[in-house]
Amino acid sequence: MKQNRRKFIINTGIIGGTILTSGLNTNTFSKNISIIKKNSNMKLTFKPYTLELKHVFTLASSSRTTTPVVLTQIEYEGITGYGEASMPPYLGESQESASKFLSKVNLSQFKDPFELESILEYVDGIDEFNPAAKASVDIALHDLVGKLIGKPWHKIWGFNKDKTPYTSFTIGIDTNEIVKQKVKEAEEYKILKVKLGRENDKEMINTIRSVTDKPIIVDVNQGWKDKFFALDMINWLSEKNVKLVEQPMPKTMVDDMTWLTEKSMLPTFGDEAVQRIPDVIKAYGVYSGINIKLMKCTGLREAHKMLTLTKSLGMQVMLGCMTETSCGISAVSQLAPETQWADLDGNLLIKNDPFIGTKVVDGKITLTKSPGIGLTKI
Amino acid sequence: MKQNRRKFIINTGIIGGTILTSGLNTNTFSKNISIIKKNSNMKLTFKPYTLELKHVFTLASSSRTTTPVVLTQIEYEGITGYGEASMPPYLGESQESASKFLSKVNLSQFKDPFELESILEYVDGIDEFNPAAKASVDIALHDLVGKLIGKPWHKIWGFNKDKTPYTSFTIGIDTNEIVKQKVKEAEEYKILKVKLGRENDKEMINTIRSVTDKPIIVDVNQGWKDKFFALDMINWLSEKNVKLVEQPMPKTMVDDMTWLTEKSMLPTFGDEAVQRIPDVIKAYGVYSGINIKLMKCTGLREAHKMLTLTKSLGMQVMLGCMTETSCGISAVSQLAPETQWADLDGNLLIKNDPFIGTKVVDGKITLTKSPGIGLTKI
Repeated sequence: MKQNRRKFIINTGIIGGTILTSGLNTNTFSKNISIIKKNSNMKLTFKPYTLELKHVFTLASSSRTTTPVVLTQIEYEGITGYGEASMPPYLGESQESASKFLSKVNLSQFKDPFELESILEYVDGIDEFNPAAKASVDIALHDLVGKLIGKPWHKIWGFNKDKTPYTSFTIGIDTNEIVKQKVKEAEEYKILKVKLGRENDKEMINTIRSVTDKPIIVDVNQGWKDKFFALDMINWLSEKNVKLVEQPMPKTMVDDMTWLTEKSMLPTFGDEAVQRIPDVIKAYGVYSGINIKLMKCTGLREAHKMLTLTKSLGMQVMLGCMTETSCGISAVSQLAPETQWADLDGNLLIKNDPFIGTKVVDGKITLTKSPGIGLTKI
Repeated sequence: MKQNRRKFIINTGIIGGTILTSGLNTNTFSKNISIIKKNSNMKLTFKPYTLELKHVFTLASSSRTTTPVVLTQIEYEGITGYGEASMPPYLGESQESASKFLSKVNLSQFKDPFELESILEYVDGIDEFNPAAKASVDIALHDLVGKLIGKPWHKIWGFNKDKTPYTSFTIGIDTNEIVKQKVKEAEEYKILKVKLGRENDKEMINTIRSVTDKPIIVDVNQGWKDKFFALDMINWLSEKNVKLVEQPMPKTMVDDMTWLTEKSMLPTFGDEAVQRIPDVIKAYGVYSGINIKLMKCTGLREAHKMLTLTKSLGMQVMLGCMTETSCGISAVSQLAPETQWADLDGNLLIKNDPFIGTKVVDGKITLTKSPGIGLTKI
């Protein structure tokens, strides 16, 4: 039954969150455009899309070769803004839940897409959770408004596009020989990311160190349950040119995490512990920094606020992502000039990216000058 | 000697922070414009200006009939952005100190006014303090960039211009009869503001209450030194349709203030206690809200961040001002749609406003649709 519904959605193509459906021939399309101009209303449409991964993606608990996403569009006065919800299965959203959420979004009640604050407050209030589905509206709306302004968001926000950081590139857990091979293939990248929290953590780092001295950031994904063990590991890692440790302990172990951050030689970053604005306040004093991801925090508007908040609190910021298209990556990278760390390799891991946008050039996040989120549809 | 220097500055008119001086005849002016276009550099110019007050302005310690300001302009590709530093003498800045500061500002090193973050970080780093002088650069730069974008800042920030609050209007301390007269003259305003912290606080409130039931906000300017007395006063005021209490106790009495906020029937607002971003963090848990003023916080960029930060912390925001022209008022009012309280009557108190901008219509802050900070020079 679920499969049938999904097939139905895919076969009918873009489905209207409001009534408009993009027709399949030019005549219908032109007719719709004229209706849009007359009403000057925003029209949200969306379609499920399946990302095909270049390599099998392995987490502690599962492996997969695809990531389900939903691609959104908001059209207004002949201009189209693009958005995306990326939903790795373990995070609790799906193409079905996102489609259900997006069907409820009625943007025709707003006459002006510039009222981002009111519109996104309304979208956030439609239902609880659904952060990726909400982000897909937020991103499309930002792309639209940026295009209406005629500037990319990093410029509207007053950032200097040359100040972007290098992105890290994840080296997946594998046999020693394959890990060495992967490190060689990642020659372009200046910073490597490694997932730890298993039995063979030290072996993994030593294997990488046998072929390169590049800085490493590690993501423990809550894997260390004992604070003394965690501190020993961090002390050891700090001598191996590791630069930071992401989510070393379970997010619920707040007191132990506070103790660890105080003692740690390396900055600690909250990831699973920090979804949205209230979590930033809770992370103050517990972590040295936070990982901001659009699919966790409902999009660019909240991400920009979290960046301001985090910097005001004297904490560090890393930008993160899921496996996603260049749409999500180009959106979040608009914030990159004001962040120290970027882990934005999500679009590099897929075979069927429908967009061209932010690129990695010599390991550095490189923004385009195109307006909105800086995207071109292939 | 000081008087001579001031006369000199006034007589020579606009003085270049960089080398450009706006000529006094059209030919010179046109020539300068062509130079600007060729270089595409920003040119900062400034001139002292003396605001003439409609009524004598009385504070606990002094009275005055003028307020010294410095008006700034930043020109870029033929577009001019306007800014202002308002410097009531008791706050420690002057036309001399602002002129000295502005003479050090070299914007020609930046090619693009859109790099607000980098430019204003540079300006902030030129010297300590000087918040009003810094604000005069920030405001002119925002006006310029908004004009280059072609939108007012409330729109660029994604705010809904209809959501602005009513402004309060200050009823100065005077004899009972004159106070009653002033209240009648303030008929247009929906909220009155009263300065307390003297012997006759209750008499002042009772006098106003004998002629109107309008909501009142009170500003104690650190006047109450005892927390029990302060709490008694707040309890009494809360029965007189008073809505909030600004800076009830000295800013240094943090523990007593925390106690008072916890017990208070009315929201407490930090004003003297809160200048810039780090003060917002310190105010968390000590006050219910903060008063943001451009001349304290160095301008719109920091004010916008403080707004985000304060709302993220679940605190309330009031926008305040000095006696200033419509330049400063129009700038800060761009933030008004996202604030609950506005005390923006500074331009209503002067006789020689050189600008038209944000207006008060039926007591409500009413933004213009003009780009930048929404200003027209008279």
